Amino acid sequence: MKIISAIDSLKGSLTSKEANQVIQMTFEDEGISVDPIAIADGGEGTIEAFVSSRDGQIKTVLSHNLKGKEIAAQYGWLTDEKTMIIESAQTCGIQFLDGSGQTHPRNTNSFGLGEQLRMACKQGAERVIIGLGGTGTIDCGIGMLAGLGVTFFDSQGGPVVPIPENFKKIAEISTAAIPTELNKIEIIIASDVQSLITGETGAVYMFGRQKGLEDDELAEFEEDIQTFSQLLLAGSESKSGDGAAGGIALALRTVLGAQIVSGIDLVIQYTEMEKKIKQADLVITGEGRMDSQSLQGKVPVGIATLAKQHGVPVIAFVGEVSGHPFEFEKVGLSVIVPIVDQLSTLKEALTHAKQNLQRAATRVKQLLFLLKANEGKKQPNH
Amino acid sequence: MKIISAIDSLKGSLTSKEANQVIQMTFEDEGISVDPIAIADGGEGTIEAFVSSRDGQIKTVLSHNLKGKEIAAQYGWLTDEKTMIIESAQTCGIQFLDGSGQTHPRNTNSFGLGEQLRMACKQGAERVIIGLGGTGTIDCGIGMLAGLGVTFFDSQGGPVVPIPENFKKIAEISTAAIPTELNKIEIIIASDVQSLITGETGAVYMFGRQKGLEDDELAEFEEDIQTFSQLLLAGSESKSGDGAAGGIALALRTVLGAQIVSGIDLVIQYTEMEKKIKQADLVITGEGRMDSQSLQGKVPVGIATLAKQHGVPVIAFVGEVSGHPFEFEKVGLSVIVPIVDQLSTLKEALTHAKQNLQRAATRVKQLLFLLKANEGKKQPNH
Repeated sequence: MKIISAIDSLKGSLTSKEANQVIQMTFEDEGISVDPIAIADGGEGTIEAFVSSRDGQIKTVLSHNLKGKEIAAQYGWLTDEKTMIIESAQTCGIQFLDGSGQTHPRNTNSFGLGEQLRMACKQGAERVIIGLGGTGTIDCGIGMLAGLGVTFFDSQGGPVVPIPENFKKIAEISTAAIPTELNKIEIIIASDVQSLITGETGAVYMFGRQKGLEDDELAEFEEDIQTFSQLLLAGSESKSGDGAAGGIALALRTVLGAQIVSGIDLVIQYTEMEKKIKQADLVITGEGRMDSQSLQGKVPVGIATLAKQHGVPVIAFVGEVSGHPFEFEKVGLSVIVPIVDQLSTLKEALTHAKQNLQRAATRVKQLLFLLKANEGKKQPNH
Repeated sequence: MKIISAIDSLKGSLTSKEANQVIQMTFEDEGISVDPIAIADGGEGTIEAFVSSRDGQIKTVLSHNLKGKEIAAQYGWLTDEKTMIIESAQTCGIQFLDGSGQTHPRNTNSFGLGEQLRMACKQGAERVIIGLGGTGTIDCGIGMLAGLGVTFFDSQGGPVVPIPENFKKIAEISTAAIPTELNKIEIIIASDVQSLITGETGAVYMFGRQKGLEDDELAEFEEDIQTFSQLLLAGSESKSGDGAAGGIALALRTVLGAQIVSGIDLVIQYTEMEKKIKQADLVITGEGRMDSQSLQGKVPVGIATLAKQHGVPVIAFVGEVSGHPFEFEKVGLSVIVPIVDQLSTLKEALTHAKQNLQRAATRVKQLLFLLKANEGKKQPNH
């Protein structure tokens, strides 16, 4: 019996790789092989997912985080494909927010991501895949552009520091200093956010609060980003996905010609998931929180959809689940198994995620084979 | 496929009958029949278990609770066997404790149980089964005896009110007024408590706190009960089980000649559990809290032990579980499934026990048949 294990990272507790290891250790047995596949949808674990799929390398480079502090950031490198994998969260992730004024969205930017794109030029990359999940900035990519040498001027022609605080001052943008090598690089955004840059489901109103904006700051920030984004759009309309990562997607698309593709679809393609699923008897997947959002291109649903086409049953281990079971069944998620199995707070559940997943996986294994294991064991005297 | 469902009551949330109904509604399907068996081990649900097993009746009688308040108490009646089933908790249960001085263990007694035994005489019972779980008194049965007409005297020959406060005053006991019919009735105590009347694991030190004794009251209460219990023991040694229900077991045994038997064994016998298990393909059981105590004669272990002898797998649904899985497996509990599946407090878990059990049962059903259901569904192209 062949099992594929492709669980997304359980945010705040287990990486995809760690979660799959638990499944492998629990299920692998006489007659059962488990193929663990690191997986992600553009968020945490995206580098790992691509690097594992193609035997690539994870490298570290000095860069700057969202408040300008020097940090070591990782990226992935696939030698054969000359492809670089970047997670924007490595440099401007939400984990760098500390609640201080310094990390308030008005004062942070995505400069480090620009530095990483420069590195892509140096590496001789032909393709860069950028995972945009978990970003802590709402800078419309202004920092990223600055990191590539783009300069910003006010209406008097004076230079403007590239932070959201100054959005409304900017009257002109000069892209002359962007490395010419970048023109030859295919830039792919791996993201599943459908937001436009502004509006009710845009970068500010949809994601602003989790990045530190107070309710009474939203309207002004929205106005400012509207002003600045019009410079990037230059008369065109915002497209679905522009609002990802606080608008970094918009800047990548309009200034650097990046394509936005579904993160999970891209990972499925690189990991040759379909081929593997076709050969499997059971697929195990999962994520931290499964809800109606999960139905729009997150890891378990992407995998289940594929498994359903090939008639392979899917079990999803989840931290928590909401929404109607029927909706999940419809897309191919045969059984959803929450890993919480005792009275607990969120903190306890995160701390004990590994043990919880171990116990849940053990129960699932026991139940899957219980009736089969028992065939022939019954006493003949009935 | 035949399934037996025999889940003990989940204290504070579901009765045995209700829990089994959830299993029946979830599992019963084309080709699957579920036989729900109300079950108990001498505690809550004991009347229901015996009455269901023999098509008996549940009757209600006016009696008094542990603080002397008139209440309606239930008992079970099996016409064919002329057997009466009593739960001591109906009259002197822990649910009557209100934290006031009136329900302090020094002031409460088991008088109502004596009244119920009188009723057994009136009913023409040949056998009385008394379940002793969940009692809120520590009166060494003094109230129960008083309810049967037993009188207590001090060293001056003056009458003594039958409450624990007066234990040490009692010098003489007169049993002359006990109804003579009681001599002809077989009295069986259904209990799984192994305690002696006194000592570290006795009625006071083991169970006193949950009935309202403060730590600094234990020593004196122990001394008093020692004094009084010596009158009942009349020179003999206390036996295992005497400490059940605050010592009611001791009084039943020494004064009325009651036998102490394992509650779960007795219920297993009355419900013809072994015969039913032999014909089943799967047994479902469960209880509120499964721990090392469960290994000593509580419902799921009693049932699993039997199922193991006949090679039938057992799934136990539990509110919570502690202890090593291996120990439970050894006694025949194939899979233990906690019904909690989300972050929750005890109150939330109790409030949502029915829905939690429904979801857990649904998952178990899906998993049990997942691989089987999928046989033949796979696309031929792999």
